[in-house]
Amino acid sequence: MTEVTEPFRYRLLIGQLLKMPIAQASRREIVYRGDTRLTYPQFAARVHRFGGVLRDLGAGMGTRVAFMDWDSHRYLEAYFAVPMAGAVLMMVNIRLSPEQIAYTIDHSGAEILFVHADFLPVLAAIRERLPKLRQVVLIRDDDIAVPEGFAGEYETMLAATAPLDAFPEFDEDTLATTFYTTGTTGLPKGVMFTHRQLVLHTLMVLTGINMSGLNGGLSREDVYMPLTPMFHVHAWGFPYAATMLGMQQVYVGRFLPEVVLRLLVEERVTVSHCVPTIMHMILNAPAAKAIDLSRWRVVIGGSALPRPLCEQALARGIDIFAGYGMSETCPVMTLAQLRGDILDGLPDRAEAEIGYRMAAGLPGPLVEVRIVDEAMNDVPHDGKSVGEVVTRTPALTPGYAGNPEASAALWRGGWLHTGDIGTIDADGYLRIVDRVKDVIKTGGEWISSIGLEEILLTHPAVSEAAVVGVADERWGERPVAFVVLRAGMEADEAALRGHVQARADAGAISRYAVPDRVHLVETLDKTSVGKLDKKAMRARATGGAA
Amino acid sequence: MTEVTEPFRYRLLIGQLLKMPIAQASRREIVYRGDTRLTYPQFAARVHRFGGVLRDLGAGMGTRVAFMDWDSHRYLEAYFAVPMAGAVLMMVNIRLSPEQIAYTIDHSGAEILFVHADFLPVLAAIRERLPKLRQVVLIRDDDIAVPEGFAGEYETMLAATAPLDAFPEFDEDTLATTFYTTGTTGLPKGVMFTHRQLVLHTLMVLTGINMSGLNGGLSREDVYMPLTPMFHVHAWGFPYAATMLGMQQVYVGRFLPEVVLRLLVEERVTVSHCVPTIMHMILNAPAAKAIDLSRWRVVIGGSALPRPLCEQALARGIDIFAGYGMSETCPVMTLAQLRGDILDGLPDRAEAEIGYRMAAGLPGPLVEVRIVDEAMNDVPHDGKSVGEVVTRTPALTPGYAGNPEASAALWRGGWLHTGDIGTIDADGYLRIVDRVKDVIKTGGEWISSIGLEEILLTHPAVSEAAVVGVADERWGERPVAFVVLRAGMEADEAALRGHVQARADAGAISRYAVPDRVHLVETLDKTSVGKLDKKAMRARATGGAA
Repeated sequence: MTEVTEPFRYRLLIGQLLKMPIAQASRREIVYRGDTRLTYPQFAARVHRFGGVLRDLGAGMGTRVAFMDWDSHRYLEAYFAVPMAGAVLMMVNIRLSPEQIAYTIDHSGAEILFVHADFLPVLAAIRERLPKLRQVVLIRDDDIAVPEGFAGEYETMLAATAPLDAFPEFDEDTLATTFYTTGTTGLPKGVMFTHRQLVLHTLMVLTGINMSGLNGGLSREDVYMPLTPMFHVHAWGFPYAATMLGMQQVYVGRFLPEVVLRLLVEERVTVSHCVPTIMHMILNAPAAKAIDLSRWRVVIGGSALPRPLCEQALARGIDIFAGYGMSETCPVMTLAQLRGDILDGLPDRAEAEIGYRMAAGLPGPLVEVRIVDEAMNDVPHDGKSVGEVVTRTPALTPGYAGNPEASAALWRGGWLHTGDIGTIDADGYLRIVDRVKDVIKTGGEWISSIGLEEILLTHPAVSEAAVVGVADERWGERPVAFVVLRAGMEADEAALRGHVQARADAGAISRYAVPDRVHLVETLDKTSVGKLDKKAMRARATGGAA
Repeated sequence: MTEVTEPFRYRLLIGQLLKMPIAQASRREIVYRGDTRLTYPQFAARVHRFGGVLRDLGAGMGTRVAFMDWDSHRYLEAYFAVPMAGAVLMMVNIRLSPEQIAYTIDHSGAEILFVHADFLPVLAAIRERLPKLRQVVLIRDDDIAVPEGFAGEYETMLAATAPLDAFPEFDEDTLATTFYTTGTTGLPKGVMFTHRQLVLHTLMVLTGINMSGLNGGLSREDVYMPLTPMFHVHAWGFPYAATMLGMQQVYVGRFLPEVVLRLLVEERVTVSHCVPTIMHMILNAPAAKAIDLSRWRVVIGGSALPRPLCEQALARGIDIFAGYGMSETCPVMTLAQLRGDILDGLPDRAEAEIGYRMAAGLPGPLVEVRIVDEAMNDVPHDGKSVGEVVTRTPALTPGYAGNPEASAALWRGGWLHTGDIGTIDADGYLRIVDRVKDVIKTGGEWISSIGLEEILLTHPAVSEAAVVGVADERWGERPVAFVVLRAGMEADEAALRGHVQARADAGAISRYAVPDRVHLVETLDKTSVGKLDKKAMRARATGGAA
């Protein structure tokens, strides 16, 4: 006998996460903007009422329930009640264009929508493009009238319903959540996660963030305030972890820096996570100067943690460090954890720590990360060799909804492809250096376009720089640079190529990395949202070289 | 669509736990008695060689591989290599009688045995009772000759084999470990755990012990030294957690207090776990007086943490607290965690903390605990009402090997029955008050025999006390006490009953708890190992009452 028959099969369901704070009667609160304060028993009662509302609206197993709200206790209620009812929570990215919002809601198959009053104009504009939607519920903070055709208003319906005594039991591989990820090209793609995945992700996040002993940590004594939108990859999974621990939680509503700073102080927040832009905004807000931030711990994700921001935060006593993951990975893959077995005895430990805090970090428990070449061979873990980051964890999207081609590409070779290019050093630290589509493949090597841009920017005459790869018969691709000079400064192509050549001569980069051409231009091509438009530059470089 | 098809199914296998310290090249060591020091790459290489040895010995999926060793790096190698090979690790309780050892090895179906030289006399005495055993491997610390008929010696075979490149992949519900639990009556019973259960238990232990923020904690910066035998319920699961984190680990070999104290200091141990007797022995060893123990964290299990021991350890600066579980539960169910939401602002916080540290504690993540009456109705969580502790977690034995009757009783009503009687307070803290077989069921209430004994012991004339329940037509059972008086002291039955009655009058215990009879005796009935023999006393009480 090798496999066993169990008299009882414990299922990894999201509802299990809510049992602990209730059984242990946590005396902490779930706070919304400082006004609304729910005890955990109140929160649980509302989740059961939400279950009643979903039943009243005809939601059953697999029903897609879309949610459009700011970060709130209501969103946390949806994180639990919708999957616990066997339905699937569709988290609408409210920052997308109305066209994209319409596409994602319709594509998800959502039949029920909970929408905050602030998004009623968007909904009005797209309503006729949502034929599958049969019930809409208003969420409001102020006394807004319930529009005609709506099923009702959230608080009123919660109060009026017969609460669901017990949520159903089902298989742990049942879908729980879905949301859409947008790339620079193509339509948004729907990712999805199961109960098993989200429960395991919760344990992985908690185990991972408590692993270092030198930075990080998340316990019942912490006060948690997310500064990442809750529609964005389950706010990195932290709300599930915080709720399971029965922690004090603070939700800020619509993001306003002055509100965030006030709540940070008044609610004695100790743990947050956000993108670098938000951290920069908070640290540089006038009101931030007078505040003691030394008990604050902040995980930075979404994009790389820049050194100046890291140093500024450390100078304020903040335990700041990076994390890495993506929509497809639930998201947490790595955290930039400090390790005594590396740092102890280093001559300049403080400087070394900064480097580690800025890294994507170490894979968490049960997370396997490889960096591979195009044939899926591992590249060396020497901190220099680059490859595409591929991963296996227990919490990865099985694919993109209704998109078998993109799903197959995502899962090529049985590993999830992140589309990121990175290095891994001998101690296992992952560092992201580029996107696959931007890396320059030349002479059998992968050269980071971002790395070359950083080198060009160290030249005193350079204001802006972009590097793209252009097709080359002999080398596959060759780097070509576009440079905007600082006003009143001068430098010619030879000088700029020489600047990069000097770094290659010093062994810092490959000798294949020196750009064939450096075009001096007035402005760089950019997209409508201000990002470098490397597609346009590749076209221009090819035209120029032809 | 509600359930999804995954292009890749991540399996929760024990081998996954070993990947992290290797990928992250932990520079910590696995230390045996201070002599042998293995790096993690060395350890992993030995696990792969162990896999080769198992292949050479003909072990395949489901093969039972028994292990008899002191706590060692070899045992840790077996924790990984045997289940990773698809075989089942049978952990032999070396403290049982030779007859019981023979029974358990044979009953497990073990075909292969690894045995330390210290246990060769036992093996010689029982060898002929082990017909299924076809291969025996010697483990030795000194230069002992390999006995005739043995397959070889562990280190020699590790060195000679072709290491297994890759361990097989299989279903996460595959059996991984088995061992035997002994009650006061009947034959030892075999419990068993799967890969999925042990991986989840590892995450549950790490999440649980890091949850409080006021006590506990386990991180990469800790140095772990178990003081619970590794054959005893996976040393409470900590070796799996410590290995996954790539922690410094210290294994003491045969338990000798002076060796333990030396290693505690020399290896800078910060985390251990043990039964109260061991902690008492260590704290009261002469060499312990001069040692700084203030960085030590110790989880106490196996039996209740007595207040004097708790106070003595706290006075030395040790972070001591109880945990609760049993062989059938993998084992960790609860940890005695401190909570700021309860303690903050209490007038005598230090005193309150002692009470919480001595409790069985709070159920860990995904652990459901109920206290129920005989009809499986929940009793109130008021800290006073008692019921049998039943549980559901993702890491419970599916039953007892080859014993359907005992398995059915264990899982009566779909919940695992611990056989312990406890209370749960309004904050969710579990406290164990008795064993089911000793609790006195009278007038619809369950009275703790241990609680009554503690009350009798507060009488100045009482030296020893035991209380048993005897059958009663009207009340079901009624309590009867046996008391040994202190030399030279006097008290009659009326005085002793009055002593208990006073506590009932004060509301501390039920009025049904006052014993009908208090027998003054010269000595209490005890078993061969010195425990109270309540079976004998029940017989005596019934005879006396008849």
